[in-house]
Amino acid sequence: MIVALAGGVGGAKLAQGLMAAPGAGDLTVVVNTADDFDLFGLRICPDIDTVLYTLGGIANPETGWGIAGDTFATLDALAGLGRDPWFRLGDRDFATHIHRTERLREGASLTTVTAELATALGIVATVLPMTDDRVATVVETPAGALPFQDYFVRRRQADDVLGVTFEGIERARPTAGVEAALAGAGLVVFCPSNPIVSIGPILALPGARDALAASPAPVVAVSPIVGGRALKGPADRMLATLGSEVSPLGVARLYAGLIDGMVLDDQDADKAAAIEAELGIATLVTGTVMGGFESRRALATRVIQFGRSLVPVGSGRT
Amino acid sequence: MIVALAGGVGGAKLAQGLMAAPGAGDLTVVVNTADDFDLFGLRICPDIDTVLYTLGGIANPETGWGIAGDTFATLDALAGLGRDPWFRLGDRDFATHIHRTERLREGASLTTVTAELATALGIVATVLPMTDDRVATVVETPAGALPFQDYFVRRRQADDVLGVTFEGIERARPTAGVEAALAGAGLVVFCPSNPIVSIGPILALPGARDALAASPAPVVAVSPIVGGRALKGPADRMLATLGSEVSPLGVARLYAGLIDGMVLDDQDADKAAAIEAELGIATLVTGTVMGGFESRRALATRVIQFGRSLVPVGSGRT
Repeated sequence: MIVALAGGVGGAKLAQGLMAAPGAGDLTVVVNTADDFDLFGLRICPDIDTVLYTLGGIANPETGWGIAGDTFATLDALAGLGRDPWFRLGDRDFATHIHRTERLREGASLTTVTAELATALGIVATVLPMTDDRVATVVETPAGALPFQDYFVRRRQADDVLGVTFEGIERARPTAGVEAALAGAGLVVFCPSNPIVSIGPILALPGARDALAASPAPVVAVSPIVGGRALKGPADRMLATLGSEVSPLGVARLYAGLIDGMVLDDQDADKAAAIEAELGIATLVTGTVMGGFESRRALATRVIQFGRSLVPVGSGRT
Repeated sequence: MIVALAGGVGGAKLAQGLMAAPGAGDLTVVVNTADDFDLFGLRICPDIDTVLYTLGGIANPETGWGIAGDTFATLDALAGLGRDPWFRLGDRDFATHIHRTERLREGASLTTVTAELATALGIVATVLPMTDDRVATVVETPAGALPFQDYFVRRRQADDVLGVTFEGIERARPTAGVEAALAGAGLVVFCPSNPIVSIGPILALPGARDALAASPAPVVAVSPIVGGRALKGPADRMLATLGSEVSPLGVARLYAGLIDGMVLDDQDADKAAAIEAELGIATLVTGTVMGGFESRRALATRVIQFGRSLVPVGSGRT
């Protein structure tokens, strides 16, 4: 079984590749929920939905998030009622949030609701929220502390990030499903998601690092930084203002002690030696920029092959 | 000031006419809320919304409810998630329910939220829910007790109605706004809405009958029964199974002691004498079947003229 840790668009793309890669076996995607927030009284889970819509084959190919061909009549009407339509929720997308919000209010766990949504979308992989507890990313900026989606969507990542905290993380726990997945994994993949605000919250959950360390599986990360830039989102700027090198080496340093292998793009081939020498992490240099389905599956296939060639940390590998 | 008591489509049509009638002055519409229910975790107020959409000029002219030209992407997507789309909520309509539900959860009263919606729709009349308390119509049928919308929409009024109860009515109260409107009214109009399940709950509110009796205004009802049939909905069948005559006389008997005048259709001219003789209620026989805006305004104008010619019960009229 492959366990992928994922955030939004980049993570979802590789997860789709992993689901379809030849010989991949069962896939479990553990998804960041620290971006979740309430809007119009509805529970919005942006990363989970991006993963669900991508794995379900209905993601908007232009944006990576939202549903292909979705319309915006409800949001437009809310704007007509004086509500700020800053977060672009489509009509079909609203159905997800309405359904989830009601199920959560009925007492269903986010894990259960996510499984229901995955089933409704015909997804063969298991999609797990990292936790059923509430965690909220807060971004420290010169303008003050901002809820994540305010920083990310409303203010378009224009603020320098001086710090990131995960409210509620100390009381949150990985779900039993997440712990079981890590314990039973044959390979763990950190998808090319933001290491600070997408993979970061998953790793910050109390017990998560121990569960990863205890897992018998090799752990491989795919760098979200290519040629000094994030393919999508603010990971490059965040790394810079938080004092990390904006490169696969900088990412690998954040993951040091957790990962056995790092996949980096051909453009960053010069970083491979430093990752191996400084951190003792094996590397695979390959094309990592994903476009459509075939390139996702191809990258996933190479990641799996690389990962399975590795001997996990703590298993005698030197 | 005119105060209109209204339920759904028929009531909304006359209310629109009253809002636009020459010399009508201020209009307050007191709307039945006993049909309200929760669906998908959202608070749905069918009669309030029909009144709002009609007065706001955006009601679907074919159905009388819902919004003209609305689309159904959200409901279709909910159906894709396994939810039963039995109650036809459009995308723009969903915005109303989402907004209202959040505002109610924030602690706003239904009166406040309704006023906000009316303002957003540019409605110059005052639209008041009959109460801010929860009241729920339950319909007794051979198939058992049914929540109103189950009977009305899901089962398409196919069940015989053996009884009607209003759950919570004994603990509910008319709002201060409703009481003030009745106390200050120059004319009260019972719109041609179902006397049992639309006007009935308003009159069943503790204190409502006393407030009407104490009002200095004449009270006029417009019959929803024309030629032995309800123009819309199950009022005719309900009257029959509950033992009332299916005619303006049967309706007038239900309102006896409350109304000073009854407006009935030309088709029912033969009932006027009995209404006057048996109940001491003045009558106006005229065309009452409303189509578009002009016919609504014309009927409203005649109703106002008739109403203002009456001396209220208890004011010395014999």
